[in-house]
Amino acid sequence: MHISKKLAQAHQSNKPTFSFEFFPPKTAQGVQNLYDRMDRMHDLGPAFIDITWGAGGRHSQLTCEMVNAAQSHYGLETCMHLTCTDMERTQVDDALRRAYKAGCTNILALRGDPPRDQEKWEVKEGGFRYARDLVKYIRTEYGDHFDIGVAGYPEGCDDHRDVDMLIDHLKEKVDAGATFVVTQMFYDVDIFLDWVKKCRDRGINIPIIPGIMPIHTHAAFLRRANWTKCHIPEDWYKALEPVKNDDAAVRAVGKELVAEMCRKILDAGILHLHFYTMNLAQATRMVLEDLSITPSTSGLALEKPLPWRKSLGLNRRDETVRPIFWRNRNTSYITRTADWDEFPNGRWGDSRSPAFGELDAYGIGLKGTNEANIKLWGKPKSLREVTSLFVRYLQGDLDRLPWSEGAISTEAESIKDDLLSLNKRGFLTINSQPAIDGASSTHPVHGWGPVGGWVYQKAYLELLVFPSIFKTVIERLDANKNLTYYAVNQKGELLTNTKDEGPNAVTWGIFPNREIVQPTIVETVSFLAWKDEAFRLGQDWSKCYPAGSSSRKLIETIMGECYLVNIVNNDFHQTHEIFKVFEGLEARDLDLVFEGTEASDHANGTYGTREVLNGDAPVAEVEKSIANGEERKVPFPTNGVALKS
Amino acid sequence: MHISKKLAQAHQSNKPTFSFEFFPPKTAQGVQNLYDRMDRMHDLGPAFIDITWGAGGRHSQLTCEMVNAAQSHYGLETCMHLTCTDMERTQVDDALRRAYKAGCTNILALRGDPPRDQEKWEVKEGGFRYARDLVKYIRTEYGDHFDIGVAGYPEGCDDHRDVDMLIDHLKEKVDAGATFVVTQMFYDVDIFLDWVKKCRDRGINIPIIPGIMPIHTHAAFLRRANWTKCHIPEDWYKALEPVKNDDAAVRAVGKELVAEMCRKILDAGILHLHFYTMNLAQATRMVLEDLSITPSTSGLALEKPLPWRKSLGLNRRDETVRPIFWRNRNTSYITRTADWDEFPNGRWGDSRSPAFGELDAYGIGLKGTNEANIKLWGKPKSLREVTSLFVRYLQGDLDRLPWSEGAISTEAESIKDDLLSLNKRGFLTINSQPAIDGASSTHPVHGWGPVGGWVYQKAYLELLVFPSIFKTVIERLDANKNLTYYAVNQKGELLTNTKDEGPNAVTWGIFPNREIVQPTIVETVSFLAWKDEAFRLGQDWSKCYPAGSSSRKLIETIMGECYLVNIVNNDFHQTHEIFKVFEGLEARDLDLVFEGTEASDHANGTYGTREVLNGDAPVAEVEKSIANGEERKVPFPTNGVALKS
Repeated sequence: MHISKKLAQAHQSNKPTFSFEFFPPKTAQGVQNLYDRMDRMHDLGPAFIDITWGAGGRHSQLTCEMVNAAQSHYGLETCMHLTCTDMERTQVDDALRRAYKAGCTNILALRGDPPRDQEKWEVKEGGFRYARDLVKYIRTEYGDHFDIGVAGYPEGCDDHRDVDMLIDHLKEKVDAGATFVVTQMFYDVDIFLDWVKKCRDRGINIPIIPGIMPIHTHAAFLRRANWTKCHIPEDWYKALEPVKNDDAAVRAVGKELVAEMCRKILDAGILHLHFYTMNLAQATRMVLEDLSITPSTSGLALEKPLPWRKSLGLNRRDETVRPIFWRNRNTSYITRTADWDEFPNGRWGDSRSPAFGELDAYGIGLKGTNEANIKLWGKPKSLREVTSLFVRYLQGDLDRLPWSEGAISTEAESIKDDLLSLNKRGFLTINSQPAIDGASSTHPVHGWGPVGGWVYQKAYLELLVFPSIFKTVIERLDANKNLTYYAVNQKGELLTNTKDEGPNAVTWGIFPNREIVQPTIVETVSFLAWKDEAFRLGQDWSKCYPAGSSSRKLIETIMGECYLVNIVNNDFHQTHEIFKVFEGLEARDLDLVFEGTEASDHANGTYGTREVLNGDAPVAEVEKSIANGEERKVPFPTNGVALKS
Repeated sequence: MHISKKLAQAHQSNKPTFSFEFFPPKTAQGVQNLYDRMDRMHDLGPAFIDITWGAGGRHSQLTCEMVNAAQSHYGLETCMHLTCTDMERTQVDDALRRAYKAGCTNILALRGDPPRDQEKWEVKEGGFRYARDLVKYIRTEYGDHFDIGVAGYPEGCDDHRDVDMLIDHLKEKVDAGATFVVTQMFYDVDIFLDWVKKCRDRGINIPIIPGIMPIHTHAAFLRRANWTKCHIPEDWYKALEPVKNDDAAVRAVGKELVAEMCRKILDAGILHLHFYTMNLAQATRMVLEDLSITPSTSGLALEKPLPWRKSLGLNRRDETVRPIFWRNRNTSYITRTADWDEFPNGRWGDSRSPAFGELDAYGIGLKGTNEANIKLWGKPKSLREVTSLFVRYLQGDLDRLPWSEGAISTEAESIKDDLLSLNKRGFLTINSQPAIDGASSTHPVHGWGPVGGWVYQKAYLELLVFPSIFKTVIERLDANKNLTYYAVNQKGELLTNTKDEGPNAVTWGIFPNREIVQPTIVETVSFLAWKDEAFRLGQDWSKCYPAGSSSRKLIETIMGECYLVNIVNNDFHQTHEIFKVFEGLEARDLDLVFEGTEASDHANGTYGTREVLNGDAPVAEVEKSIANGEERKVPFPTNGVALKS
């Protein structure tokens, strides 16, 4: 959405809004950390974020990537900065094209600073000298697609201190097609408000967004103020000077000062605040909380139009349906479906088209280096040690599992005991949701969609089941008329009690004066695409460990043997019923330790370890119901098994 | 659906099914009566019905019309008879084309009887001599589109008594492409079963449907048995002879005999019974009830896939959504949307295409002659007398109103008192439904859709509101955040508190392993189309009475003055809340009698009567919120009003 439209809406509802500015970090780890921070800062409810353009365009590729990630994966309305300095026209064209493809609709057009090694700079081949030229060019090339912001300098800029002349320049940028103004940082509200008045008098009628620099440390405060030559009111010095060596005290005092400044701005009727976060969350969050304008402090819940985070990628804004399977793998889902023409579409069920992108084409396997993952998950040598990871994850003591890119959601609270019990008995739970029989759409945990509605869910459970128990599980599933299920192993042998391939809506909402919204579904084709990914993630995990090692063999065996089973309880009044299927069942040999080749020559046969873990071989009846189950009909060898007592 | 497929499904579930045969009546009134009967007999749950072909093709147009009505309006799977006798090829082509267009997929191909005035008959230009030729032709022209039935003669036919030779003919018809057999009537089950065995031995393996003639009167029983030369078992004569002069006793005894015969057939594993109803319901229903195979006697509810009766018209079988407005005007809705390409479609909201057929193009105004309608509704002279018609309708004492083509549904029971109270206070209720917060899909009154599901409804109310009360009503509606409404008068002045034109789902169902189904909606464009029809029906009603008469003026005034208001309570947990909007409100001058020109020269001014009925003129605030409301700003004249006491 255009920023100017967002501002108009906020103005209409008389509700303060704010935005965050980030810049491309220097390292890959820094980028990942910033993504995680952006993801968390989403919950503060920014109206939009900015990604700055690397000075001289050096980080331009990264800026484009970050704009795409912010839009598509984190669902953050993003404004991409773009500068004239050191940019050829083809580079500008490329950046605009990439922004367009990312679904980005907002550009902040800047002249930019000259490269660090030059005091003056020359216009590049076909490039632009002034921001107004860039504004004109974007308008010419893209019409009204982009909302175009420009910079305002209440206290002059680097090479021009004549404020009135700069207002003339600003007027030219507006006349060239700019639709909003973001100011340079300032600390003196009177200067800012005076400058706004001058702008208005000069006929600049587009929204003006004040740029706010929260105070992180005393040194940075002085350095930035000095660099931008902005006036620091006398009382700010007085307040900060006494505590300047105590960072915490500086942040606390700084927060008070900045919040007070923001209040003055809001009182003057300017309802949007733009924060220069410097890629840090704390100082900005403190100011917002002091102002009571975050969801947790304002009493106004974060707008959550759907149960999953909306992507703002190109053509994705109207996306309304997703399979439940990628619930904990949002990035993967966005990536695998990036080439779709429409969302939702009929391609899940259309075998003629490659519905979900190939796993390898997108590099969407397990996140993190082997070392980091081993550090995170240790070196499990028994099923018990694997299940304990799942238990820790459910208890909130582990931030991610191979199948879940983020921490456990609060939604699982009501079924946590059931899930813990399952995992402790050797059923590894991959995904789940409790049943919801009409919660308010504003419910703090389960709510989504417009106010005044009711949301519903069918209980869902997805887990890994060992063959020794599989037959009993299927029998119990078949005996319960409320349950529908799909079970599939790594080889793709599928078992289901559903009769057709159409979607099963497992989350839906009823809203005033609307059609029913049904944003989460279970269905066959997408489950089979997910199955490949789910087993692949396990394989990736096993490959974190050296070939022949206990952990690799253990995890390989789990992935090679288990069925991935998903179950829906179609009676959405029942939350715990789905767990009764597993009552009294437990995986065998939970504590049997797998021994790697380093320690024993005997443990190198897959069959050996497999037999140990499974206990009984799967029975013939189950085998028959699965296509191409021939391998299993070979009795497992009973020799060659190496165990530690 | 093909009859042979229906039979296969019924066979698989081992559940007896049955069908009814009707013939085209001689008079228009007879056709209307038969339609009403077919509509009622739908509730007995026939698998399909047959419409016979007028002998010699004389009633052929009517047969085609009836096939279309049965398929489209009454949702009855229909088999059209088609004969060779007296039919040119172009007539056959025309009949098949019309059957196709009606969505009919079943044809019974017959040779037919010669015209009454000829003992032998000649093949017409390009026509067909034998049924097998007709079967072949249909297969050639339409491939597998039509399921094709042929006649079987267990005791010979008119001009051939050699049963074995007739079985040879039957085999030829089967070889030509027939897919099921319907037999001539018979009363001797042994003869029939013996004949079936012969057919099977002869290699005729398609389903054979026995034709059953229930006994209406003794004379008809003998005449038909004699005409078809079928054998009547001795005990049948013995049982019927003693009671032959008592029609009721004949039917009772005949019912026992025919039911016993049906039981023998069912016991022999032939699970479908075809009844020659002779366009009468009673004798057939008695047999079915004796066999306990109707929905009310079998304990198996009538399948009701959606809350409204599905149309089987061409392309309509997958129709899943309808506006609620035509709930009591099914025929009109089917007719007005007959030219749509798909169901549902986006045309409700597409202003470029004529979404709903023009009123006049389809002749879908008020049903019945003026005389019949006056007989039904009397000559109301005051609002009280009009409301008393609505009260009688709600109490089940009146079969139809101008806005409801059939009797009040049992669904209204839970809000009957609310509706009665409204009407007694002068609000004429046009349409309504109670809120349902998750009833079982097999609920006898509210249930629909597959078993194991839950159905929901938002409370809905549509009624006529006089301007004197309108402002208060709108104020109360605006004050209740759960209610959305549309109000429109005859001139098309629309008032609504809805913000977009998208549909509001007011009926929906949640089913195992399915998407949410939302078959009934409220939305703007269709409401405006319905508004024209609703006001037109009132006008049509007024025109049943002579110009200048009290009744015409009264009804014209009501239609000219009232707003048609629809209200949805988006909180589907609340049934009675919607009626609180009208608490303490009453139309003025309920008992004021309108006087016609015959009785008084004074009562000829529209303003006069309008003023009387409305009491206060509408206030300015309301006026402002309605576009083009200028006329109303002129104060009503206070003179020229003619009243009785």
